[in-house]
Amino acid sequence: KKILVIPGDGIGQEVTTWGKKVLETIAANYKHTFTFDEGMMGHVAIEATGNPLPDETLEKARNSDAILFGAIGHAKYDNDPTLKVRPEQGLLKIRKELGLYANLRPIKLFDDLLQASSIKPEILQGADILFFRELTGDVYFGEKNRSEDRNTASDLMIYHKYEVERIARKAFEAARTRRKKLCSVDKANVLEASRLWREVVQELSKEYPDVETEHMFIDNAAMQLIKDPKRFDVVVTGNLFGDILTDEASQIAGSMGMLASASVGDKIGFYEPIHGSAHDIAGKGIANPLASILSAALLLDISFGLQDEAQRVIKAVDATLRQGFRTMDISSKHTENRFLLGTDAMG
Amino acid sequence: KKILVIPGDGIGQEVTTWGKKVLETIAANYKHTFTFDEGMMGHVAIEATGNPLPDETLEKARNSDAILFGAIGHAKYDNDPTLKVRPEQGLLKIRKELGLYANLRPIKLFDDLLQASSIKPEILQGADILFFRELTGDVYFGEKNRSEDRNTASDLMIYHKYEVERIARKAFEAARTRRKKLCSVDKANVLEASRLWREVVQELSKEYPDVETEHMFIDNAAMQLIKDPKRFDVVVTGNLFGDILTDEASQIAGSMGMLASASVGDKIGFYEPIHGSAHDIAGKGIANPLASILSAALLLDISFGLQDEAQRVIKAVDATLRQGFRTMDISSKHTENRFLLGTDAMG
Ligand SMILES: CC(C)[C@H](C(=O)O)[C@@H](O)C(=O)O
Ligand SMILES: CC(C)[C@H](C(=O)O)[C@@H](O)C(=O)O
Repeated sequence: KKILVIPGDGIGQEVTTWGKKVLETIAANYKHTFTFDEGMMGHVAIEATGNPLPDETLEKARNSDAILFGAIGHAKYDNDPTLKVRPEQGLLKIRKELGLYANLRPIKLFDDLLQASSIKPEILQGADILFFRELTGDVYFGEKNRSEDRNTASDLMIYHKYEVERIARKAFEAARTRRKKLCSVDKANVLEASRLWREVVQELSKEYPDVETEHMFIDNAAMQLIKDPKRFDVVVTGNLFGDILTDEASQIAGSMGMLASASVGDKIGFYEPIHGSAHDIAGKGIANPLASILSAALLLDISFGLQDEAQRVIKAVDATLRQGFRTMDISSKHTENRFLLGTDAMG
Repeated sequence: KKILVIPGDGIGQEVTTWGKKVLETIAANYKHTFTFDEGMMGHVAIEATGNPLPDETLEKARNSDAILFGAIGHAKYDNDPTLKVRPEQGLLKIRKELGLYANLRPIKLFDDLLQASSIKPEILQGADILFFRELTGDVYFGEKNRSEDRNTASDLMIYHKYEVERIARKAFEAARTRRKKLCSVDKANVLEASRLWREVVQELSKEYPDVETEHMFIDNAAMQLIKDPKRFDVVVTGNLFGDILTDEASQIAGSMGMLASASVGDKIGFYEPIHGSAHDIAGKGIANPLASILSAALLLDISFGLQDEAQRVIKAVDATLRQGFRTMDISSKHTENRFLLGTDAMG
């Protein structure tokens, strides 16, 4: 099995080291042969080659079985919106080129992190949500325009029926293996793209009579998610709404530093933490490597079908938390100093 | 002073009665002369006239000094996305026609509601956010398209410089009278419209060196809002992101049923609860009228400059909560039965 590692920018570098080490350890313990290669993407790639996704990286990606990615983005571009070449273009391009249309984001709280969230424990306990975020369409990929005088700017929010159908189908199938509830999120009271979305999901729901399907507006969903996260099982939504909701949902898992995601579609799987490059803490050795480690677990599970190995990783994370070990982002006022770890110690 | 009351759909009818009664009571007590008229909008207007915003209502709106609105929307349209004439079109049209480009949504917790939120009291205490949501642009008003074969649908997300400038200016001015912090929310790492947004806000911030300006991506903002609401003072954002963030922020105020909003622009002010028509509880007499009552307070304050009168209303709400009275949405397991009220008793 060939794994391409793309650390990317900021804390991506620090945390991906640990996702990779976990894969190496699993390979050694279970006698699998994983070969690793490394690729550049994002700000680091722009600095080195002028291109956020160099052809060489894309070529390596196409020849791999799975990809472990870190994070993307840099303050330089955030502070200067006029820059033409931007790190995020690399990530968007690789998602599109590899046909990674389904982004799975499981939101589950490790029991020991109940205190790390800003939400009340009784609201959180038992919450377990699986997000399906559409990843290669929507306003992310619609035509962009800037007027000659630079005073008008636009992006086209656009969906095709087949795009909605294939992601919704994956979500329905997943719901079948879980609590059989699907919530589709849109803004059909205002947006035409959302009305198409809702029509397609409604139509498809007839094929899944055993799944209880509900439609919710994005504004309401953003509220319900914090008010009563337990009401959700599988959630399916578009690229933009999925981006927003899953970041918000990170508070259900205690911290963004705990959440992994899998992007799948045609063939190759792409695994990454939900968190960003976090330039404010990059290089300080304090980032939480658990999201990268849990991304490695998703990789083992989804791309390689190695469920035992994946469970072993998740159990190791759980055991570590049970012993009281915390990185800064998941510490609480009850965390003792000797249990507060940096990236490497936690890894 | 001429006030147009538009109850709209669902619980809009029930709660607006009380917003109006409060205005009448204030008029009597302070010897003001308010004259009231009533207009139709939304599903009720479609049923009666075929038009979600009848010309008569728009005419009355144009001739009023301020408008007290209830809510809009009906399950019939939510369940059938193919319907061409929809209640929400009425609301969008009146916003556009009256030039209501700035939607102010103050998020503040009444101390006695600390327990009603799903967020921990220590995270909430002291949170006080004023949202400025742009209300007449963005993907809400950009061109909509549906392909001939109905398999492709799109909405144009579009912003013009002057639209960003005028709302941002209002937000900067407000920040000056508060804690002097402005957070502008966008998705400039992906969207061209957001890059324009960020450029304009950056440029304008030079005129407000006394205001600390920060830019945040919408996904991050959706998370920070629950993680640490106290970090925000004034927030300015586009129509779509503002819709999502302010609904989410309702959990900071304990319940959606507590939040009022003011839409202003050219001349006439438009006041409404943030909550929707809530058809699931409509007609049951259990909706919380406080958001409508607080909308009336905003109307007195912003459109009529009657600060004392507005404060009197807010204090009455506070006193009512202090005495333990609750509607269902803001009750907690500690609420005794005799303090649990329906809409009219609470009103
Ligand atoms: C970095 C950015 C382009 C990206 C996105 O918006 O998709 C990120 O926020 C994510 O969620 O993966
Ligand atoms: C009813 C709907 C069109 C409206 C909106 O999205 O603007 C509502 O959610 C609001 O926030 O006022």
